[in-house]
Amino acid sequence: MDQEFDAHLQELRRGTVVLACLRLLREPGYGYALLEELGRRGFGAEANTLYPLLRRLEKQGYLTSEWNTDEARPRKFYRTSPDGDRLAAALSADWAALSASLSSLDDPAPEEG
Amino acid sequence: MDQEFDAHLQELRRGTVVLACLRLLREPGYGYALLEELGRRGFGAEANTLYPLLRRLEKQGYLTSEWNTDEARPRKFYRTSPDGDRLAAALSADWAALSASLSSLDDPAPEEG
Repeated sequence: MDQEFDAHLQELRRGTVVLACLRLLREPGYGYALLEELGRRGFGAEANTLYPLLRRLEKQGYLTSEWNTDEARPRKFYRTSPDGDRLAAALSADWAALSASLSSLDDPAPEEG
Repeated sequence: MDQEFDAHLQELRRGTVVLACLRLLREPGYGYALLEELGRRGFGAEANTLYPLLRRLEKQGYLTSEWNTDEARPRKFYRTSPDGDRLAAALSADWAALSASLSSLDDPAPEEG
């Protein structure tokens, strides 16, 4: 059962990593630095899920990317697009609404109506 | 892009429905009544995802079930198991931690260490 237990926790976290990436990448950043920052901030992202997620968000138009070749090792820098900002705002609003709903769970049920 | 936009919002909600079910089913309840209550409380659950979820949570041992045949129409009542209570506690703790992490996103990055 431990595996299923963890799967439920993972599911809860997954949506928050998208929001965290969109917020953090308002300042351009590359994959590995973002991975480290997500870790420091308590989002349990792993490379094998984060890197495909970044590519997916770019493909969907929520991130843009640019190669930085100033240093010896070229790096792909991602940045949140205007559509990505809109998605982040919607996710934040949803998170706040869900938090309120979760807080209400110990209250009596709302009236039917 | 609207479809992808919605998919990200759905993903954020999905984990919260599990937690809401486990909390609400501390009082035994049947599928349709739970669906209505989730709606009233602002969790956007739909029958075609909620019913399979309840069966899955039962199979995983987080819910127990019992048929109530007192009325004309027999109904399957679900109830949160002790393991379900433990999962709900872990999900609640994770939600609180993720809320704190999300709130920190507009702060400067924590020191590397």
